[in-house]
Amino acid sequence: MNYILKNENAVYYECGFSCDNEIFLKLGDEKFFITDSRYALEAEEKIKNALVLESKDLNKTARELLRKNKIKKIIYDPKDWSVEDFKKISEKVKTNFKPDPSFSQKKRVIKTKEEIELIKKAVKIAKEGFEEFSAFLKEKGENLSERELHFELIKILTKKGEFDLSFSPIVAINENAAKPHALASKKALKNGDLILIDAGVKYKRYCSDRTRTAEFSDHITFQKEQRFSDKKKQKIYDTVLKAQEAAVRKVKPGVKACEIDKAAREVIEKAGFGKYFVHSTGHGVGLDIHELPTISFKNQETVIEENMIFTIEPGIYLGKEFGVRIEDMVAVTKDGCEIL
Amino acid sequence: MNYILKNENAVYYECGFSCDNEIFLKLGDEKFFITDSRYALEAEEKIKNALVLESKDLNKTARELLRKNKIKKIIYDPKDWSVEDFKKISEKVKTNFKPDPSFSQKKRVIKTKEEIELIKKAVKIAKEGFEEFSAFLKEKGENLSERELHFELIKILTKKGEFDLSFSPIVAINENAAKPHALASKKALKNGDLILIDAGVKYKRYCSDRTRTAEFSDHITFQKEQRFSDKKKQKIYDTVLKAQEAAVRKVKPGVKACEIDKAAREVIEKAGFGKYFVHSTGHGVGLDIHELPTISFKNQETVIEENMIFTIEPGIYLGKEFGVRIEDMVAVTKDGCEIL
Repeated sequence: MNYILKNENAVYYECGFSCDNEIFLKLGDEKFFITDSRYALEAEEKIKNALVLESKDLNKTARELLRKNKIKKIIYDPKDWSVEDFKKISEKVKTNFKPDPSFSQKKRVIKTKEEIELIKKAVKIAKEGFEEFSAFLKEKGENLSERELHFELIKILTKKGEFDLSFSPIVAINENAAKPHALASKKALKNGDLILIDAGVKYKRYCSDRTRTAEFSDHITFQKEQRFSDKKKQKIYDTVLKAQEAAVRKVKPGVKACEIDKAAREVIEKAGFGKYFVHSTGHGVGLDIHELPTISFKNQETVIEENMIFTIEPGIYLGKEFGVRIEDMVAVTKDGCEIL
Repeated sequence: MNYILKNENAVYYECGFSCDNEIFLKLGDEKFFITDSRYALEAEEKIKNALVLESKDLNKTARELLRKNKIKKIIYDPKDWSVEDFKKISEKVKTNFKPDPSFSQKKRVIKTKEEIELIKKAVKIAKEGFEEFSAFLKEKGENLSERELHFELIKILTKKGEFDLSFSPIVAINENAAKPHALASKKALKNGDLILIDAGVKYKRYCSDRTRTAEFSDHITFQKEQRFSDKKKQKIYDTVLKAQEAAVRKVKPGVKACEIDKAAREVIEKAGFGKYFVHSTGHGVGLDIHELPTISFKNQETVIEENMIFTIEPGIYLGKEFGVRIEDMVAVTKDGCEIL
């Protein structure tokens, strides 16, 4: 099977290196990494399983390889190529380019032992970051804005720049937590406010992802057991937690992705909040923060297998009031799953 | 002229709003902004010149508009559409999709008065950030790693998260400054080291971009006049500064972009370092950090016009020794330019 890749994580998965100007080809048993003079030296040092080719015109070099090797058919991911780049690579050659959406992510859906260890490390760093952030909040959180809190959270999670973030974290107070993708605002944190934190870091390029919701006070923690002064918030929180636990219990090899989603959704529907759970239950995590499998009621096809890693993150979002989400990552084991 | 846009900055330029799931269409005299339920409300509040359409399938809604309005021809930017998305939007309709690379950037190349004011503000914030960072370096810079310095620079430039960055800043010491796109490492700053800083912030979405190179000591500044203990560094620095000044002097309406590049390149070539100036002299800056015009010796076509804004940033990069780059942004005036 021949394939051609352009996405950095897809290429890194194949050869342990990537940069921002590259084309990777697998043609028969041979692999090629094409890049420009800025990166060629480092690529040669780091890539052991592919031939590094330095080029001033990457597309042209790739086309020459296709011609020289008389390649009749090659797989590409139509999500990763712009119309312009695809034209440059595919025109003037006789090769048949076969689209295969998410080609690399499909290869990466089952994690190796080494990958699981890296992801566990990424989760551990984030988990410790959440604890350190709760200690920060206790001491200095009051009256800080979401933006200031956002900045402090980044400082803690990255250990002042030592680690990269999986994505720009969400720090949302009260009604802002009702937006699943809230941007930090000038809104300031007060005693008794609900605060939602959604964040993750990378360890050796592998991502983590975690969400906690809590009530702000001088004894705030990000443990899963939470006490809210307000009865409605407590009810919603307990419902989301019950939904998360139900979904986690459902995870094992052989079940369908949609059944896991259903387990969480049923708890929330029974409590009367079905229409406020506006997204799917989870997504795979690896080199990309969003990978396969998709844990959605729409996904009737995917059957869960050992060593898949994904999030379980149900939520309830009450318009202009508040939102609650609880998110952990799980690794599928032989007969269930491990919460990371 | 009908056109269809997907790029966030391109859409923002048309209607003053954008989000991460949108399609914008101009069909005859009518404009349409299609998005999903998460963003529709905010879009309606903020967009005055286009009809906001909420949709669960943006491509389908766009295709329906094309059909209903019997659109024969529409412009799109092949750089902004993936093969997959383009297929979804263009199949099943009779409209002829005409590719026009950089369509929106071409519209945006001449800045309005309001845009120039916003960019000036972005430059001012970054300039002040550079000064504050030099004060930080004097006091606490010694022995900090590039990564720690990188983090502190971000803290200062963004005023702890109040402003967004134009891009992840470059903080490079000695031989790392010889890589035009260096990533921060664990390398620690010592007295007498050369340090290169390349950074910018956004103000109301408009970018700034600035580079300074200096010698680290307890009286470091990021002014353009610099003293280096090492003669070779001083010679290279003075050459780059002379090249930058020559290019800036060349800027006025009517000259070609390549002539500005040539002015800088000639100074560096005459000093014997031509082959170490490995990139072009500058690039436009606006909503995108890299826009038109491209100030390159290859760009024989573009003629400079009043109210273009671009960088002038020659550099010399000596392999494993060190690199020097000096970068300012200029706004073209009636008979020359203003250094921002």
